[in-house]
Amino acid sequence: MLDFKLESYARSDIYPFHMPGHKRQPVFAMDPYAVDITEIDGFDNLHAPEGILKEAQERAARLYGAGRSYYLVNGSTCGILAAISAAVPFGGGILMSRNAHKSVYHAAYLRHLSVEYLNPCITQTGIQGAVPVEEVRRKLKENSDICAVLVTSPTYEGVVSDIAAISAAVHEYGIPLLVDEAHGAHFGFHPAFPQTAVRLGADAVIQSMHKVLPSLTQTALLHLNSDYILPETVQKYLSVYETSSPSYVLMAGMEKCIRLLKEKGEDLFDAYAARLLKFYNETKQLKKLHVIQRKDFFGEEIFDLDPSKIVISAKHTKLDGTKLFQRLLSEFHLQMEMSCGFYALGMTSIMDRDEGFDRLCRALWKIDSDVSPAEEEEPGRLVLKLYAPKEKKLELYQAMDLPVEKIPFDQAVGRISGSMVSIYPPGIPILIPGEKIDSDFIKNIRKSILHHLNLQGIADIRNEQINVVNFKKM
Amino acid sequence: MLDFKLESYARSDIYPFHMPGHKRQPVFAMDPYAVDITEIDGFDNLHAPEGILKEAQERAARLYGAGRSYYLVNGSTCGILAAISAAVPFGGGILMSRNAHKSVYHAAYLRHLSVEYLNPCITQTGIQGAVPVEEVRRKLKENSDICAVLVTSPTYEGVVSDIAAISAAVHEYGIPLLVDEAHGAHFGFHPAFPQTAVRLGADAVIQSMHKVLPSLTQTALLHLNSDYILPETVQKYLSVYETSSPSYVLMAGMEKCIRLLKEKGEDLFDAYAARLLKFYNETKQLKKLHVIQRKDFFGEEIFDLDPSKIVISAKHTKLDGTKLFQRLLSEFHLQMEMSCGFYALGMTSIMDRDEGFDRLCRALWKIDSDVSPAEEEEPGRLVLKLYAPKEKKLELYQAMDLPVEKIPFDQAVGRISGSMVSIYPPGIPILIPGEKIDSDFIKNIRKSILHHLNLQGIADIRNEQINVVNFKKM
Repeated sequence: MLDFKLESYARSDIYPFHMPGHKRQPVFAMDPYAVDITEIDGFDNLHAPEGILKEAQERAARLYGAGRSYYLVNGSTCGILAAISAAVPFGGGILMSRNAHKSVYHAAYLRHLSVEYLNPCITQTGIQGAVPVEEVRRKLKENSDICAVLVTSPTYEGVVSDIAAISAAVHEYGIPLLVDEAHGAHFGFHPAFPQTAVRLGADAVIQSMHKVLPSLTQTALLHLNSDYILPETVQKYLSVYETSSPSYVLMAGMEKCIRLLKEKGEDLFDAYAARLLKFYNETKQLKKLHVIQRKDFFGEEIFDLDPSKIVISAKHTKLDGTKLFQRLLSEFHLQMEMSCGFYALGMTSIMDRDEGFDRLCRALWKIDSDVSPAEEEEPGRLVLKLYAPKEKKLELYQAMDLPVEKIPFDQAVGRISGSMVSIYPPGIPILIPGEKIDSDFIKNIRKSILHHLNLQGIADIRNEQINVVNFKKM
Repeated sequence: MLDFKLESYARSDIYPFHMPGHKRQPVFAMDPYAVDITEIDGFDNLHAPEGILKEAQERAARLYGAGRSYYLVNGSTCGILAAISAAVPFGGGILMSRNAHKSVYHAAYLRHLSVEYLNPCITQTGIQGAVPVEEVRRKLKENSDICAVLVTSPTYEGVVSDIAAISAAVHEYGIPLLVDEAHGAHFGFHPAFPQTAVRLGADAVIQSMHKVLPSLTQTALLHLNSDYILPETVQKYLSVYETSSPSYVLMAGMEKCIRLLKEKGEDLFDAYAARLLKFYNETKQLKKLHVIQRKDFFGEEIFDLDPSKIVISAKHTKLDGTKLFQRLLSEFHLQMEMSCGFYALGMTSIMDRDEGFDRLCRALWKIDSDVSPAEEEEPGRLVLKLYAPKEKKLELYQAMDLPVEKIPFDQAVGRISGSMVSIYPPGIPILIPGEKIDSDFIKNIRKSILHHLNLQGIADIRNEQINVVNFKKM
């Protein structure tokens, strides 16, 4: 049973290099059943805050430098849906990172948006790079009906785009910039980490607190600093997308986290930055494995790299990301956040302990000492091929409401996708409903299955079938 | 600060006759930070469940008699949004209870639905009654473009509609019946309580677990038993509306609750029913106050009444609902769930103790002994007047996206509302965007302000201003 299994996992010696950022440390004592109430007198109402929740949100705003901040209890998901709904009218146009989270696509679906993509660069290292500001300028010049721009920064791997420059470019067109900073709620607290988009000119910034801070899963923040987006419009859409019974357990956890950052943030981040520095130093001489660092991207299109994400490349070994991930888990009891293609990724936070970094460092040196060098085709390149731009035949919202049929891979070439296909994690779509399926895509999907990549949205992997739009069924 | 205030409230002697249904009892021990994880191996994925979460949902389905059940971590809100989106195509028609929760209106907004209303009866007692099956039949006959019917049953006050009869009527038209049973997750476990809509022919039933069961706030269930709604379509929309990082704390709490019901439900409900029976017996001789019971509605349009809701009428006293609510709180430390018009409402669950019922009983007898009889106009009638049907000039979704202007009450007569106005609690809209504001409405709003009813959606109460649609601003 789920609860027993969770309790048993909590007692295990497995060290969590994964979300949530509290790392299951007993940093805050809380009996959830004792503090879980409803909107009784004196405890305010998240959807029309006037008292204690208004003040709590104001403290969050001051801490991050936002004009206004909103506590979110349905994760960044509801913040993304609300921010896009508030920034773009129904049926309007949006320019968005192609490597955006599913929720951005869902917002485009719900609001019938016409979608233009910003394609991130592909770096020499093999992970997706930043969104170049020139790409933003070019797309804005070419498409006059764009009402807002959304950039995902940092990416899952910690790649940061130049938000200050992008923001300036976007504002020249008199439209707002939204930044999905779900993985950057720890930005701006210490010089070892990038600055937050909140302080770099973005109009709306969405951060998952639970991903990188000591806060419970599903907690997030939406920050607003905008001449274009009205707070009352944001509040209207949050009321639509977010539960009308928000959890006081989650909200109390947010308040505890915000207070910790305010009162002890400096010391905690100093110690954390020192731990990371030590770890990167101790792993930089690895022979076959490689822990990716800022300097690996010299001259390439990334503005900054978040060192909190430990990205371990197995590109030059016989391992792939999944095998490295599995070996770290089974042999060393180190649970990484995810693996994808040629690398495994660990997430860290101010709550990590020396023990974790030491164990990871020792494990990497051990693996490095006995692993064989690369032989077969590199799965990292494969993942990047999967992300190659596709041809849009229908808008996402049109295709998502059309009837579909499940057909064999080979017959699907040239047809229009009826599903969103993604690799999970990170859950970034590689094929969108409405896009044309080409032969390269099918070829690469077949290879991905061989490489055991976790594909979502393929109708039937075993029998090689995929959903395509079927106009005849209408 | 919120967390300190919650902890201090938890230590107080205030007895909770309000949500959540665990009543802050230490029924389940849980350290939220110890069990709060993410979708690591072995812990499944709520949005594509194949393991431990699939099994947990199957146990919930078996317990309630559903073909399929979905755990929800964004409350009934996301269940309502998903069920309506799955049942009605974009731009389709829905026939829905006028006294539906905001989320039903929000679904109509998001999906551009044309909306027909089922008006509940007004009972002699003064609370809104059930939706008559004849009303359903009549509206279905008159409107050929209706794709689904949604009924709210039970209401906040515990009034149950005849779901079996309504379901049969709706199915004659080959369309699905959705039941917002947010307040009925305890139905079907004991003969003292009504049967659940899941077992009475409804296609989709949404229940808030936290409202009436020992489960954490934001936890809910969506049950499916339908020939009309596909499970994969429901899953698709849940992925849209619900966070992509669901909380394992909330899900573990659901599992604990489901197991408790399965293993000890019979005993717990027996004891609970006995406590309620004793309470209703001990209060039935009250002279001025009146605890509403099933027999008060003899011959009126309600199918059943949920005894878990303790509705205390102050109609024949000088008190109104708010004053009764306040007196119970300040003098007796009994926190009711809400007050509205002439009554205060307490919520109970299997987790209530003899102490609570005894204290409430003694308090009511004390108030009954010293309260003066009624003099002024009865606020209950006022609330019912506020709920009077309005004329629809625009569809909700059209009006909600139009520009609005804030104008004085007197100038608003004849104009089209630009806001959703509701009394909170229960949060049921009394005026919908797109409806015409008439002079009776303005008159009754003014009276409501005098009676200190908690109005939401009035632009400026102090200066008597309301938002209306302004076509000129477009």
